Amino acid sequence: MTAPIVGHLDPFFFEVVEAVHRDLRTVYGTANPFVFAISGTGSAGMETAVSNFVEPGAKFAVFTAGFFGDRIAEMGRRHGARVVRCEKPWGETFSEAEAAEFIDRERPQVVAFVHAETSTGVLQNPEWITRPAHAAGAMVIADCVTSLGGIPIRIDASGIDVAFSCTQKGLSCPPGLSPLTASPRAIEWLRARKTDPPIWYLDLKLITDYYEGQHRYHHTAPITMFYALREGLAAIRDEGVEQRFARHQRWHVEFVQRMRAMGLEMYVAEGNRIPTLNTVRVPEGVNDVRVRKLLLEEHGIEISGGFGPLAGKIFRIGLMGPLATKDNLDFFCEALEKCLAGAPAVA
Amino acid sequence: MTAPIVGHLDPFFFEVVEAVHRDLRTVYGTANPFVFAISGTGSAGMETAVSNFVEPGAKFAVFTAGFFGDRIAEMGRRHGARVVRCEKPWGETFSEAEAAEFIDRERPQVVAFVHAETSTGVLQNPEWITRPAHAAGAMVIADCVTSLGGIPIRIDASGIDVAFSCTQKGLSCPPGLSPLTASPRAIEWLRARKTDPPIWYLDLKLITDYYEGQHRYHHTAPITMFYALREGLAAIRDEGVEQRFARHQRWHVEFVQRMRAMGLEMYVAEGNRIPTLNTVRVPEGVNDVRVRKLLLEEHGIEISGGFGPLAGKIFRIGLMGPLATKDNLDFFCEALEKCLAGAPAVA
Repeated sequence: MTAPIVGHLDPFFFEVVEAVHRDLRTVYGTANPFVFAISGTGSAGMETAVSNFVEPGAKFAVFTAGFFGDRIAEMGRRHGARVVRCEKPWGETFSEAEAAEFIDRERPQVVAFVHAETSTGVLQNPEWITRPAHAAGAMVIADCVTSLGGIPIRIDASGIDVAFSCTQKGLSCPPGLSPLTASPRAIEWLRARKTDPPIWYLDLKLITDYYEGQHRYHHTAPITMFYALREGLAAIRDEGVEQRFARHQRWHVEFVQRMRAMGLEMYVAEGNRIPTLNTVRVPEGVNDVRVRKLLLEEHGIEISGGFGPLAGKIFRIGLMGPLATKDNLDFFCEALEKCLAGAPAVA
Repeated sequence: MTAPIVGHLDPFFFEVVEAVHRDLRTVYGTANPFVFAISGTGSAGMETAVSNFVEPGAKFAVFTAGFFGDRIAEMGRRHGARVVRCEKPWGETFSEAEAAEFIDRERPQVVAFVHAETSTGVLQNPEWITRPAHAAGAMVIADCVTSLGGIPIRIDASGIDVAFSCTQKGLSCPPGLSPLTASPRAIEWLRARKTDPPIWYLDLKLITDYYEGQHRYHHTAPITMFYALREGLAAIRDEGVEQRFARHQRWHVEFVQRMRAMGLEMYVAEGNRIPTLNTVRVPEGVNDVRVRKLLLEEHGIEISGGFGPLAGKIFRIGLMGPLATKDNLDFFCEALEKCLAGAPAVA
């Protein structure tokens, strides 16, 4: 990010952009020509997906079992969609039968779900949603904020039409951009849209004209954020994408064993867990705020708590990028054990 | 920007944010409590202003004599406002009588204008718009993208209700945030709004709850961009805001004299010029693209050309921040003279 800043129409900038797009395709697991980094953080990517692909009046089915599913539904509502929600308690997943039953009943034009739900630590199998959605002729938007760069997404194989993410989680970069991809089918859908998308700043047609072809000026992109993302993606390429995913998986499995050895319980059922975002139940009688405060102040480790219905009930522990190593796991487990021992009472 | 990245709810981050807000008040010339840096570049600030303060169905008067005035009108149209445009040829300003006549006839609820129009180099006197607008009970939005940090804006004295800007022009930072301020009157107006603003990511009520009070999570802010903005503003504070404005003015005056000595003509009439963005007429028979290419390739200097109705007709020359010095001016003028001599023919 300390490299000299060039103009937003400088040929060097577009070289950086091209490198970013190429490497994003690899981490997303897609051959989609349409890949961009939106000039905002993850939620701007969510808003880009919803405002471009869900027209006012369209029926929009949102599968939600956590905080970010609700956020997608709220954006759909604001953009004038007819939102129908398929809800389950926080922490659960949707089976293919459940998804099919809902989609067949509601017949939405667009369906959205959260691939890796940050608020709960739950991973949703994309195909359990995309198969029934495509069978009903609907397009599928996936929130990949917590999964991109951490675990395989395989956009093309899983049938996701539109996906968005962020830079500060699985890609281990500073926050500031939202990588977004769309299938050729989704782009056809976008071209056939009858009304202009409501948000000029996030209009994908205008953004396409800026990044491609004649580079028609749209907005000034955050140049240094692209430098950072290019380097972050280069580091992933150096390690190898599949090797990175395997490393995340390996230390996740080890993490689960260590927790069990400490008498702690994972919040999410085996098979549904996000390897890079581990949710652990706060033991009975333990004050989670005090534990997290001790971890931060005495060991310099920041973990998150639960919120909404999970406030006080779970710890959310990131284990991704350069932090998914044996040394870091040792360091964390030792610190957590000490903090739990020092914080038995509910405040 | 290379400082360690903290979380978006970290107390240290909010210390940085507080420092940014304090210094933004100084450069904006306002005591408004409401000052934020929006998580997107300048056009995201424009969209924030329009989508929060112009309700669907509201009558929205846009004064436009350049590219960015048109952009504001386009955003208003997309958000469902009844847009009325007061247009003049690119490069002109609006007198108080012209503004009053239009506003009295149209009776808009919200009025917008561009303080410093980047496409033409023209400065609009804010009071010629705010006085008739306030007399008619309308609220005023000002595009200060090119003026903030370069010249005095004096939000409170000039009666601007809502202003937005960018970080990469007068503030001499990387692009990535959009500083926005709103008067207490505008905030009252916002609170009385009957519908939710259409854009969740740019909803100022939610953004306020994030940056103030209990710091309720909204989106992940681009942390490193705040670090950069804090340092850019600290550099301005070190020099002194008024001293900086005076320095910009001083070298602008010198610039105009040098151009005259070279037989070149300024595009904008004296009194209406933006000191930090100088527009110079391309001399008869000179190919502006070739001159700009020579400047860049042989001297490492990047200037811009005109676009739209001014394509090929003007050079747009930035003279702001660390570049507004005698040495830089000498360097530029010498280079320009050489390039003009070497590029007499139209290609």
